[in-house]
Amino acid sequence: MKNKIKEKWAKGEAVSNAWISIPNAWTAEIMASVGYDVMTIDAQHGLAADLANILPMLQAIEGSGTVPFVRLPDNNPAFIMRMLDAGVVGLICPMLEGVEDTAAFIKAAKYYPKGNRSLGPTRSNVVYGENYAKEANDFTITLAMIETPEALKNIRNIAKIPDLDGFYVGPWDLSMSLGYEKLADFQDPSFLKILKEILDVANEHNLVTGIHAATPENARFFADMGYKFVTMINDSSALKTIAKSTLANFEGSGKNGELGAY
Amino acid sequence: MKNKIKEKWAKGEAVSNAWISIPNAWTAEIMASVGYDVMTIDAQHGLAADLANILPMLQAIEGSGTVPFVRLPDNNPAFIMRMLDAGVVGLICPMLEGVEDTAAFIKAAKYYPKGNRSLGPTRSNVVYGENYAKEANDFTITLAMIETPEALKNIRNIAKIPDLDGFYVGPWDLSMSLGYEKLADFQDPSFLKILKEILDVANEHNLVTGIHAATPENARFFADMGYKFVTMINDSSALKTIAKSTLANFEGSGKNGELGAY
Amino acid sequence: MKNKIKEKWAKGEAVSNAWISIPNAWTAEIMASVGYDVMTIDAQHGLAADLANILPMLQAIEGSGTVPFVRLPDNNPAFIMRMLDAGVVGLICPMLEGVEDTAAFIKAAKYYPKGNRSLGPTRSNVVYGENYAKEANDFTITLAMIETPEALKNIRNIAKIPDLDGFYVGPWDLSMSLGYEKLADFQDPSFLKILKEILDVANEHNLVTGIHAATPENARFFADMGYKFVTMINDSSALKTIAKSTLANFEGSGKNGELGAY
Amino acid sequence: MKNKIKEKWAKGEAVSNAWISIPNAWTAEIMASVGYDVMTIDAQHGLAADLANILPMLQAIEGSGTVPFVRLPDNNPAFIMRMLDAGVVGLICPMLEGVEDTAAFIKAAKYYPKGNRSLGPTRSNVVYGENYAKEANDFTITLAMIETPEALKNIRNIAKIPDLDGFYVGPWDLSMSLGYEKLADFQDPSFLKILKEILDVANEHNLVTGIHAATPENARFFADMGYKFVTMINDSSALKTIAKSTLANFEGSGKNGELGAY
Amino acid sequence: MKNKIKEKWAKGEAVSNAWISIPNAWTAEIMASVGYDVMTIDAQHGLAADLANILPMLQAIEGSGTVPFVRLPDNNPAFIMRMLDAGVVGLICPMLEGVEDTAAFIKAAKYYPKGNRSLGPTRSNVVYGENYAKEANDFTITLAMIETPEALKNIRNIAKIPDLDGFYVGPWDLSMSLGYEKLADFQDPSFLKILKEILDVANEHNLVTGIHAATPENARFFADMGYKFVTMINDSSALKTIAKSTLANFEGSGKNGELGAY
Amino acid sequence: MKNKIKEKWAKGEAVSNAWISIPNAWTAEIMASVGYDVMTIDAQHGLAADLANILPMLQAIEGSGTVPFVRLPDNNPAFIMRMLDAGVVGLICPMLEGVEDTAAFIKAAKYYPKGNRSLGPTRSNVVYGENYAKEANDFTITLAMIETPEALKNIRNIAKIPDLDGFYVGPWDLSMSLGYEKLADFQDPSFLKILKEILDVANEHNLVTGIHAATPENARFFADMGYKFVTMINDSSALKTIAKSTLANFEGSGKNGELGAY
Repeated sequence: MKNKIKEKWAKGEAVSNAWISIPNAWTAEIMASVGYDVMTIDAQHGLAADLANILPMLQAIEGSGTVPFVRLPDNNPAFIMRMLDAGVVGLICPMLEGVEDTAAFIKAAKYYPKGNRSLGPTRSNVVYGENYAKEANDFTITLAMIETPEALKNIRNIAKIPDLDGFYVGPWDLSMSLGYEKLADFQDPSFLKILKEILDVANEHNLVTGIHAATPENARFFADMGYKFVTMINDSSALKTIAKSTLANFEGSGKNGELGAY
Repeated sequence: MKNKIKEKWAKGEAVSNAWISIPNAWTAEIMASVGYDVMTIDAQHGLAADLANILPMLQAIEGSGTVPFVRLPDNNPAFIMRMLDAGVVGLICPMLEGVEDTAAFIKAAKYYPKGNRSLGPTRSNVVYGENYAKEANDFTITLAMIETPEALKNIRNIAKIPDLDGFYVGPWDLSMSLGYEKLADFQDPSFLKILKEILDVANEHNLVTGIHAATPENARFFADMGYKFVTMINDSSALKTIAKSTLANFEGSGKNGELGAY
Repeated sequence: MKNKIKEKWAKGEAVSNAWISIPNAWTAEIMASVGYDVMTIDAQHGLAADLANILPMLQAIEGSGTVPFVRLPDNNPAFIMRMLDAGVVGLICPMLEGVEDTAAFIKAAKYYPKGNRSLGPTRSNVVYGENYAKEANDFTITLAMIETPEALKNIRNIAKIPDLDGFYVGPWDLSMSLGYEKLADFQDPSFLKILKEILDVANEHNLVTGIHAATPENARFFADMGYKFVTMINDSSALKTIAKSTLANFEGSGKNGELGAY
Repeated sequence: MKNKIKEKWAKGEAVSNAWISIPNAWTAEIMASVGYDVMTIDAQHGLAADLANILPMLQAIEGSGTVPFVRLPDNNPAFIMRMLDAGVVGLICPMLEGVEDTAAFIKAAKYYPKGNRSLGPTRSNVVYGENYAKEANDFTITLAMIETPEALKNIRNIAKIPDLDGFYVGPWDLSMSLGYEKLADFQDPSFLKILKEILDVANEHNLVTGIHAATPENARFFADMGYKFVTMINDSSALKTIAKSTLANFEGSGKNGELGAY
Repeated sequence: MKNKIKEKWAKGEAVSNAWISIPNAWTAEIMASVGYDVMTIDAQHGLAADLANILPMLQAIEGSGTVPFVRLPDNNPAFIMRMLDAGVVGLICPMLEGVEDTAAFIKAAKYYPKGNRSLGPTRSNVVYGENYAKEANDFTITLAMIETPEALKNIRNIAKIPDLDGFYVGPWDLSMSLGYEKLADFQDPSFLKILKEILDVANEHNLVTGIHAATPENARFFADMGYKFVTMINDSSALKTIAKSTLANFEGSGKNGELGAY
Repeated sequence: MKNKIKEKWAKGEAVSNAWISIPNAWTAEIMASVGYDVMTIDAQHGLAADLANILPMLQAIEGSGTVPFVRLPDNNPAFIMRMLDAGVVGLICPMLEGVEDTAAFIKAAKYYPKGNRSLGPTRSNVVYGENYAKEANDFTITLAMIETPEALKNIRNIAKIPDLDGFYVGPWDLSMSLGYEKLADFQDPSFLKILKEILDVANEHNLVTGIHAATPENARFFADMGYKFVTMINDSSALKTIAKSTLANFEGSGKNGELGAY
């Protein structure tokens, strides 16, 4: 069982991530056709929140080369196991606060003796082969979100938890709960300093760091800084953005000589 | 029962149209939030082809101010009636060839004495009120696609069919079936001439004309020419376009000082 | 394979029918729990129009004692066969006009040598047993709608078509297409006379007659007249009716001493 | 962001509520067309329990004027946030017992600094506009169910929890867990006394009080008593009730002269 | 309310169980047509994990004679209640560890005064009748999974919890968490000894014992040993097995004289 | 665009086909994991009859190496185009009778100038690349069913229709409509003679021949005879078969020493 993401990380490369909030297999298939390294289905704030919606999306992107991640709704062990059984490779757990809850997250995601994930990888056995359960502890990826003041305070201890692969920074919730007026302000030196420190802690512990960068420019910026997992698009927002600019172009432009096409 | 589209046409204005091929109510709701005059669910080539998929999309855009049209899969009377019963306001019928099939299209879309639409407007009664059936013949809109050589040949007779509201040009199928090498080439004078002639015939008969313009620039061009219903975006293609350009921006740009946001 | 409906008819009894337009298996299960002889899923004007929606409804009422009928969207042989393969017992075909189309309806519904229904009763084999195909020609029920002036004119010839079980009168479409101002006016002697004549023709040919009576009072009236299949409720309308009267009762009544319950 | 319910409460008026247990967008649309102030989707005992079912129902009633509430399955923060992200305005939390769990309910429903609701209002941003997050703490409504002996005992302390909008009494569970033989017996003075005391505590703390009244007569009774949120219908039960009475009317009545209609 | 499973157990008979992981009502209907005593929908590792998927499966097997069980995803009270409200008869709770969690499981599954299951059996009232709530505490069945070292250690105390009906052994998780190299090795005397001891404890306390036997041969073996609930097939695995052997038969066999049929 | 099936045929090899009647993407994924050359979704008698059900199945098997075919419900051009737009490679058209209807089938399946398939390959463009439309006429596969006496009579003329790839024999319908008492009796020399003659006509015209062989033994027999497309399993029947034999093995065998596993 090859894991393209771990291979890229082993070579020091950043992986590109698309954020998926539309609960539909066709839009997932479109996104996967574009070539992102990872697609993360957002089961917390996205509209595909349960297996009934997530399963067809996983099936639709299987074989595309894009690796499926899920941002969990919370730290519920049954949901963690269900996602892994359904073929999800990477998990991003939100709202963690410290060692205890992060360790519980890892425990639910790993089989004995590293954890207590229950055996029964119904779809993963079909998709990844009959050896899945044997190799799953090395294959699956776990990222702990750093988005609360508590997580920030406890970050050095969280970093030591065995089998954690890295951090994923949620700049909106983090800045809000730290009391910043302007949220996720990547121009604010004091906030950038925090983002740099998170990266430094991760690097000290051989962890990767990811961030919800929201745009390709931001993603480039953070990848250049050393972030190894950068989210640059949200499907719902992107569709709204292009639909708005299309209508504005039609209404605004009085020029009519140039005919475009896509 | 006010019909915003007919009101705009009465004032000589062009209406903006978004083409919907994603079979999902959430993306439909996003598209409707942007402010297009019309959204046309494509039941011919799109992936929402049956009532099971189309109904939740109609429900999701109800009340948005955007008026629902459907491009029919074909000239099947039962499907035509079903769409109207479900609350669709405008119908675009593909692949018509002449007077007989176009008249059949109109007949299926109108109640006695203008046609033989069967009575039973299950959802339209709830959405538009109990008077729906009485006013439906004036309320619903019918556009005949001009996309075959036969239709082009018979266009002056088609234009005389009572209760037809207008034409909708399908430039891809039309240019292909006319033997053009480059499809829908809006720079080709001989093709543009055809598009102008269709418009002229429509104007002579007090019909509106629509066209699958595909981009906002093209839509502007045709609206300026006199087209009154211009399609400028396809949701599936638009999502792919922005997803591709986002990834390209990330991979291409080495600049990192400017942080954007959307 | 026992057929409860044919048994009732053999004894001269009328069967009660509930009309189903809500595309949902739970509301179907509720309706079936009440004890109607037949439930007719309306695939013409109702919102469950395709197998994707109809199948779970059939599954939900299986074993309830209520027999599933479908009102077809039209006279399409593929859809007719699909409904029968999925376990539907009775078919009501709308908008028939004469001998040719009615004979085609029967032909699609019956196996060789009576017709050309294709073999492959996927679900019926499971639900009714492996003998299904052998007995299906006797088991299934076919009702031809009488709702157009043409059908009325040709009714005596329609009545002679072998294997037709009966008529189903659609009083709304019939009165509309006959030019009546007030639709389905069961107080109008001239319209009632027509309904009586249809019944008489049926009786002469040993056919049953059904009617879309809409209310239990009307259903009683027609059952007493000799109609053997009477539709007395539409689930969508009934839900709206009780929801409206509930709110009106709350808003209207100032009395507060009597506490009710259901 | 106007909140019609809070406006009515500010004027001292009671709001009418319909209870929704059918997992279907069409029945939701029918119910919303009738004019209830609020529709509460019951994610605890109803059959629409997850976002996959609830989302299309929310979409279908958007713009109807009826405000969507959800009765939560339990006090799970991830589910609370998901409902609010999807556009739900009011939350009713069942089975609360005291200050700790009720405070946790409020914390999950409010953004920093009042709580720790995570940022990401995917659909609410589209439906209520880009200012949603800024105004959400004032916009959303939280009702704590009073249906256990513990909640009754702790009610004065629960009432003091900041940002709680009111109580919602569950008379069936409350009477059962208090050991009453006859459940929700609104004729029993000892039970009515409890319901009056809950209302008095609420009034002392400027909270509204709601109750699962089940019928319009009961709802009237409690509204007159001072309850400000009264549930008078359950869609599943209502459909069963009218379907039963329709069949009974048909079978029972031998009268045939009076033809009704709806 | 007759409970066929309890009747069989009262006569000392073992019941046959089919394990359901395909999230589909048609495959559920096929499985139910075969005649298993019980079908257990696996909401932990199977792909029907939420009510949206489980409900149509329950509806499809209603009336088949096969009794619906659910293996819970975890010990969540809201999910337990939801399954029982939807008509599930038996619950199998995974990953239990001792008295406290097992008692919580029972408490969530039983009404006052035995537990605190909330009242609102939406579908069970329709399927089992209006007396459901009164008789539900005797009607529903609860099995505690024995699949962790902790559960094994605490088994004698678990066995004393009132209203627990029995154990269900998960041999894969149990052997894995006990450190066995070969999982669920029914040939290993040390492992078989454990399985025998679980049975003995159950028998001492008048509890039934079930086991995930996986094959009919194993199921026979354990039924003969005294197990009273034996799982012998998993629908997903079975379909894969027969699809593989069919293709192998085609590719392998060069014989062509014998023509088979099924 | 490589076409694995045409490549095998070019080498003179027979392709293995699995028949799909379960309307579910997970069972489709299981079937595809086994390694059949082709999977044919049966939109005529199977329970996945519309795009809403077929699309997720196509998505789930994409990239598996198994090529998707659809058996059409009938010869409807709109449905033919929709299947091809959704990514289906091969079409099997039932109930054909002669040259006219078969030519119409081909015409609907091919772009200008070979036919009049309308342009808009929404999903095929994503799955097969932007060149899809250019190469589609060579890429797609069309098989005409031979299952009526008329088709048999006209078979030599049907064989000459340009762009037809081959025949697919439906032995059940064929034998039934020819008046055979025992259907699809592959032991009956007179029937086998017909099947051999169909093959001979095909070979004369460089067409492939397929057959609904139903079992691996029959499939082997016909492949050895020269058939190049052999259907050997139906997913619904196979699941029922193995579920029945499993229960029978449990009930029948008293032996308990041998423990099996799968």
